Amino acid sequence: MDQVLELSYALDTFYFLIMGAFVMWMAAGFAMLEAGLVQTKNTTEILLKNVALFAVACTMYMIVGYNIMYPGEGVNSWWPGISLFLGGDNATADVIAGGDDAPYYSNLSDFFFQVVFVATAMSIVSGAVAERMKLWSFLFFAVVMTGFIYPMQGYWKWGGGFLDAAGFSDFAGSGVVHLCGATAALAGVILLGARKGKYGKDGSIHPIPGANLPLATLGTFILWLGWFGFNGGSELKISNVEEANAVAMVFVNTNASAAGGVIAAMITAKLLFGKVDITMALNGALAGLVAITAEPLTPTPGIATLIGMVGGVLVVFAIVGMDKVKIDDPVGAISVHGVVGMWGLLAVPLTNSGAAFGSQLYGLVVIFAWTFVASMIVWLILKMVMGIRVTEEEEYEGMDLAECGMEAYPEFISAK
Amino acid sequence: MDQVLELSYALDTFYFLIMGAFVMWMAAGFAMLEAGLVQTKNTTEILLKNVALFAVACTMYMIVGYNIMYPGEGVNSWWPGISLFLGGDNATADVIAGGDDAPYYSNLSDFFFQVVFVATAMSIVSGAVAERMKLWSFLFFAVVMTGFIYPMQGYWKWGGGFLDAAGFSDFAGSGVVHLCGATAALAGVILLGARKGKYGKDGSIHPIPGANLPLATLGTFILWLGWFGFNGGSELKISNVEEANAVAMVFVNTNASAAGGVIAAMITAKLLFGKVDITMALNGALAGLVAITAEPLTPTPGIATLIGMVGGVLVVFAIVGMDKVKIDDPVGAISVHGVVGMWGLLAVPLTNSGAAFGSQLYGLVVIFAWTFVASMIVWLILKMVMGIRVTEEEEYEGMDLAECGMEAYPEFISAK
Amino acid sequence: MDQVLELSYALDTFYFLIMGAFVMWMAAGFAMLEAGLVQTKNTTEILLKNVALFAVACTMYMIVGYNIMYPGEGVNSWWPGISLFLGGDNATADVIAGGDDAPYYSNLSDFFFQVVFVATAMSIVSGAVAERMKLWSFLFFAVVMTGFIYPMQGYWKWGGGFLDAAGFSDFAGSGVVHLCGATAALAGVILLGARKGKYGKDGSIHPIPGANLPLATLGTFILWLGWFGFNGGSELKISNVEEANAVAMVFVNTNASAAGGVIAAMITAKLLFGKVDITMALNGALAGLVAITAEPLTPTPGIATLIGMVGGVLVVFAIVGMDKVKIDDPVGAISVHGVVGMWGLLAVPLTNSGAAFGSQLYGLVVIFAWTFVASMIVWLILKMVMGIRVTEEEEYEGMDLAECGMEAYPEFISAK
Repeated sequence: MDQVLELSYALDTFYFLIMGAFVMWMAAGFAMLEAGLVQTKNTTEILLKNVALFAVACTMYMIVGYNIMYPGEGVNSWWPGISLFLGGDNATADVIAGGDDAPYYSNLSDFFFQVVFVATAMSIVSGAVAERMKLWSFLFFAVVMTGFIYPMQGYWKWGGGFLDAAGFSDFAGSGVVHLCGATAALAGVILLGARKGKYGKDGSIHPIPGANLPLATLGTFILWLGWFGFNGGSELKISNVEEANAVAMVFVNTNASAAGGVIAAMITAKLLFGKVDITMALNGALAGLVAITAEPLTPTPGIATLIGMVGGVLVVFAIVGMDKVKIDDPVGAISVHGVVGMWGLLAVPLTNSGAAFGSQLYGLVVIFAWTFVASMIVWLILKMVMGIRVTEEEEYEGMDLAECGMEAYPEFISAK
Repeated sequence: MDQVLELSYALDTFYFLIMGAFVMWMAAGFAMLEAGLVQTKNTTEILLKNVALFAVACTMYMIVGYNIMYPGEGVNSWWPGISLFLGGDNATADVIAGGDDAPYYSNLSDFFFQVVFVATAMSIVSGAVAERMKLWSFLFFAVVMTGFIYPMQGYWKWGGGFLDAAGFSDFAGSGVVHLCGATAALAGVILLGARKGKYGKDGSIHPIPGANLPLATLGTFILWLGWFGFNGGSELKISNVEEANAVAMVFVNTNASAAGGVIAAMITAKLLFGKVDITMALNGALAGLVAITAEPLTPTPGIATLIGMVGGVLVVFAIVGMDKVKIDDPVGAISVHGVVGMWGLLAVPLTNSGAAFGSQLYGLVVIFAWTFVASMIVWLILKMVMGIRVTEEEEYEGMDLAECGMEAYPEFISAK
Repeated sequence: MDQVLELSYALDTFYFLIMGAFVMWMAAGFAMLEAGLVQTKNTTEILLKNVALFAVACTMYMIVGYNIMYPGEGVNSWWPGISLFLGGDNATADVIAGGDDAPYYSNLSDFFFQVVFVATAMSIVSGAVAERMKLWSFLFFAVVMTGFIYPMQGYWKWGGGFLDAAGFSDFAGSGVVHLCGATAALAGVILLGARKGKYGKDGSIHPIPGANLPLATLGTFILWLGWFGFNGGSELKISNVEEANAVAMVFVNTNASAAGGVIAAMITAKLLFGKVDITMALNGALAGLVAITAEPLTPTPGIATLIGMVGGVLVVFAIVGMDKVKIDDPVGAISVHGVVGMWGLLAVPLTNSGAAFGSQLYGLVVIFAWTFVASMIVWLILKMVMGIRVTEEEEYEGMDLAECGMEAYPEFISAK
């Protein structure tokens, strides 16, 4: 019997690690997506930010974030007990002893799965503030975001805090990850202002096309693949029939929703613009993925497709709408992860009878309010202390030369 | 005992889902390969087609294709019983009850694995008709192909239809997937005609070089990786010693054949052209992969390498030959998946004593004939109703502006 | 009981295959990294080398390398018993018989995992000799390296030879793979000389910037992901609580060390150069990964981060130092895999009480001496027989036209 228990523990640990590796891969997806959607002169810098934020997120979450989000014992349901540094605890004896409270997978595999989530949340920010945010201000924000802001609200839901107690339901993080990241981005964008030349004084909007659409497409496919880990791993267990069926359902629904998002966004774009802007199709896929993330288990695949389709329509209008109110988000991150993240949260009660519209709205508002206020304070401090925006001349010349001293494509002649 | 059964079910389900995720990743591989091998002015559009066809394939196969290919009960072995919409059936009781007919993995994990296969078949088509096929005609074809044409012949073999009864052997789909996709592409290409300027009136052939070879190489590596899921998952089970050994053998042989394909294609290209056209090396890898797909289990790794080498030689001559008969296939898809797919089918009896040359040829002819006739009818209807080819001016200006209203690389100055 | 044994065998085999697939994916990582860091005119050729070396490595290791490295019986601990061709042995009876010596995973899954390692070692070489090494000389070297030089020293450690007996400790190959690859590269680079124009006669150093930094970043992310397989799979077993915990620890430490490498390299670059050269951040990630590879199991995650940080600082100084002594390595491979590989080996005793500084140094010297001398002899023979460097004119025109007859980006106008 013990051997069966051990095998089960091993399978669940392996499942967790592989799902975590898929989520880690999303860091590459965000990097490619953002590098494809900015101008050539800002490409090196956005790549650097994506590599660096991942490193910062992994390190800060190890030092303090994980222990905030999943404390041994919380002070209360609003405030976690904070300790420093990830322990290496993987106690074998407890497993063998068995019982309902026995760990059924390695603690460190859980940490690995969680640490790549915080990096995802932070990746959302980099895209929205692209092409004008100072490198080191961004990285200091990343330190606070991944070490404190994200883990606090993560504790409230997944760490067993008051949002969990209030019945708020968020399977894999439409709210805890995507809305949180988008909200932090929104605070930054508001303070930062639009890129020079994006909005004319006469109210005109000047599109600034992405410089490398194959990269953006690659990034989207990477994210699509990584999302199987993001949602599929959030079932947290696979080692019996019921759980295995659940994970399979999550994979199928995640895929179906993304597909629905693409189709709906393409048709919406065709109807609105006459042609199909590929960035709308890509954002449609991501919208489908974000939308289903709050509840990928209870819908049927057909319903999951519809949830994704609504996300795909929403994202097109949201992107158009952001420009109307002059919120300049070069990659559409706030629309994809914020607006559609909200839709995902509110759609949970449609198929999950254990969730209620009221508690979903409550969770949404709490996550938004906390992240917006906390982020705004940090952005403001950074603005006062070191500034958050590059100079007008640096913006004109490009972030790459200003921050990295090198071009992304030094041999290709660019049309300016 | 029950717990062991449950663990086994969980492991097989997990294996299926991971293998399926690898195959899903092939969609990115096709997208990058094709985006790298077309001209810059047609790059956005081919990327969009690849994203869109994946979405269409997933949705159509869910609505109708899967139920055609694997019906609860067929009308007869030529005609499946058709029902609509994937059910969410994952019956736990049957598993626990056990017995030889008990499901040993989640039905939905099977669907996930199957749905990414149909997308693969459709991805083959997009490359061959690139640079001149209308976006929306292509997507309507995708609807019929993934919802009906592919599932029908899939039913005949993998759904237990008459090709299966006839002893036709096709482990992971050299015929059912690759030849099927290539045949649909061939019908489209014949009707569509060559790209303007490809073939001179004097019989001369003008190469149109791919615009971004790193992308094409990346796409090939992605496909190579994804193929471990394609072939490795087609063993369908891994949870005992015999099956685990079989899956390992499939991984090793798949890799060996691809390696053989590269080496043979490089040497062939060097001998024929004096220099090594990298696209031949890439197509050599893919040829090795297609060739071994019909039977990756019974060869030794040495024989698998040889099967791949024959594929690698074949594909070079096939690509040269297609141009001779003025079949214009910008990425070589018909050669790789069609010609080499046939070689794969016919090579099965060399190592698998359970297969016969006659039944392999029978299956090959049936798949080709069905797919060619059915596809041709659909292409013809589309041609009459909405046209399948863009105008000469649109072709000259590029598909990207015509269909998407945007360029793939707007800042780079292109030499025309 | 038997069924549990079978399940355990299946899980370990599946784990091995998946980890191997991750390592295979590193081939794409090296290809993208190198293609991004060379000039446009040499891009196609470096891509071709990466595809071809992988194919050569897989084939040579199957024919002879694997049997050298893991012989049925060695002649003695310095000299393996050599036989030809991988067998297809996957004996089921031995497994069922059980006992401590019974195989607990498929032999072929072990081969698959090993074969992708040798390709990694060879990939290191291609980057260092880029932009001037003849294609076919390189491939002939690959034949000897992957069939003989690498497997010999691999036998000494992992095959149970004299380095293993001497207490040399190298978990996943900081020495056996990375130092070995870097040393073979060093021998080649010394013989080959620097690229024209890299070093002025007055002692000046002229940077030759990489042409496509998004590709280089993508390559780094791919390698980061693949490394979870590289280190995680080197635990060799996952199917009980202790082993599962160990694999989880390896994943976490591998990730932590890479993150530490990025942060340290960025700060070092900022302090040295005033701006953050992104290639230093990327090489910092790789340095963190190489550094932890010799011992990813015994450090705590905090210590792993520090080990990576030291690697990140080291790699920046190593790259600067190499240029000082006019060792021209276009991608920094010798610094990353060689210098930091040594650091990794020497850092093992810091956390692993079973390792001693003396035996680590011994192993380091043996691997370096063997690989350097053996490689130098092969490079010298190749130089005499067919030459290893392209002509000055070919170098000026670019390797792509000389070796492949085609450009990587034929439509983009390059600034020369």
